[in-house]
Amino acid sequence: MKIINSTIVSKLKFVTLFAIKYLDKKGTLKSWDMVSRKNQPKCIVHGNRQPDAAIIVPYHSKEDKLVVIREYRVPVGDYIYEFPAGLIDPGEDPAFAACRELHEETGLNMVSMYRHSPAVYSSAGLTDEAVAMIFAEVTGTPSGKNNEDSEEIEIFLMDREEVRGLLQRKGAIFGAKAWMAMDAYVLMGKEYLTGRE
Amino acid sequence: MKIINSTIVSKLKFVTLFAIKYLDKKGTLKSWDMVSRKNQPKCIVHGNRQPDAAIIVPYHSKEDKLVVIREYRVPVGDYIYEFPAGLIDPGEDPAFAACRELHEETGLNMVSMYRHSPAVYSSAGLTDEAVAMIFAEVTGTPSGKNNEDSEEIEIFLMDREEVRGLLQRKGAIFGAKAWMAMDAYVLMGKEYLTGRE
Repeated sequence: MKIINSTIVSKLKFVTLFAIKYLDKKGTLKSWDMVSRKNQPKCIVHGNRQPDAAIIVPYHSKEDKLVVIREYRVPVGDYIYEFPAGLIDPGEDPAFAACRELHEETGLNMVSMYRHSPAVYSSAGLTDEAVAMIFAEVTGTPSGKNNEDSEEIEIFLMDREEVRGLLQRKGAIFGAKAWMAMDAYVLMGKEYLTGRE
Repeated sequence: MKIINSTIVSKLKFVTLFAIKYLDKKGTLKSWDMVSRKNQPKCIVHGNRQPDAAIIVPYHSKEDKLVVIREYRVPVGDYIYEFPAGLIDPGEDPAFAACRELHEETGLNMVSMYRHSPAVYSSAGLTDEAVAMIFAEVTGTPSGKNNEDSEEIEIFLMDREEVRGLLQRKGAIFGAKAWMAMDAYVLMGKEYLTGRE
């Protein structure tokens, strides 16, 4: 497999659609449609392994609860359960981006980081978007006062049984990474969040 | 928040770029850029909660190993570790789509399903793409003979320690859901895969 070049099909403010020319394993020239948040996709900017966004899996240790948000998402046209997240500024450490977004979206503060992922790809057939998963201890009292007008966010502190109930609730909609983390939390308890085996 | 309408900005074979007009929580008209694999995004087709793709988390019980694939992904421009996955045909049960793709990509067979997610959103700010996560018991001998020309897939059977080593390997690249599942498997062992607490 070999990438030949990329062509911008459409460029909007936050998303660019590209057609990528590549050679398949038999050497046949093919085209792949993809989207990126960047001006050049990661398959062209060789060696760009920086995450675009940070997602925090927030464990409120004093309350022994997981912090979950419910947010309106335009592409879904509905409210979905997920975790605080945001785009990483150029040169910003993903952990500090997570800290900033956590505070903006929930009013909570990050105390320490348990573990983090490298840049992992949200949907590698569709986009070069990569995120860093940040498992962290948080503290404070939830507040939505820093929300932007385009954000409509509810904040929940949930123990293991409450998360179990949420996962079984008919009609509840989830982000994929949030569902994965909630499912593992229900099975394993807080040791999943803190990473202590 | 209220969706007003959607406009097709560009339509390619596998991806369509939309601009969505919506009212924010103050009633101000705004636009959101998004992509979809469908002709109409899910925020317009009200009540479409069907997953677009199925991803299988395959536990080879006879070998007591997790099945992981390494596949070239054009948008990433590199090989990434992930799980067998594929688009769901109209009307197809996600579990059978997972079964079919598992067989096509790895030669393995699905024996039973441990649990599954509802339609969960890969990156809800960017796309309406939703996937079903299928945790399943698999059997058989790995083989890549059914791969298509556009696919270049390596198949690995890995025990918990091997997955732990893979997650720590410098330069290894992961899909987000695969990283989440591997991380939980390393922490919890096979009970994570089978869902038995």
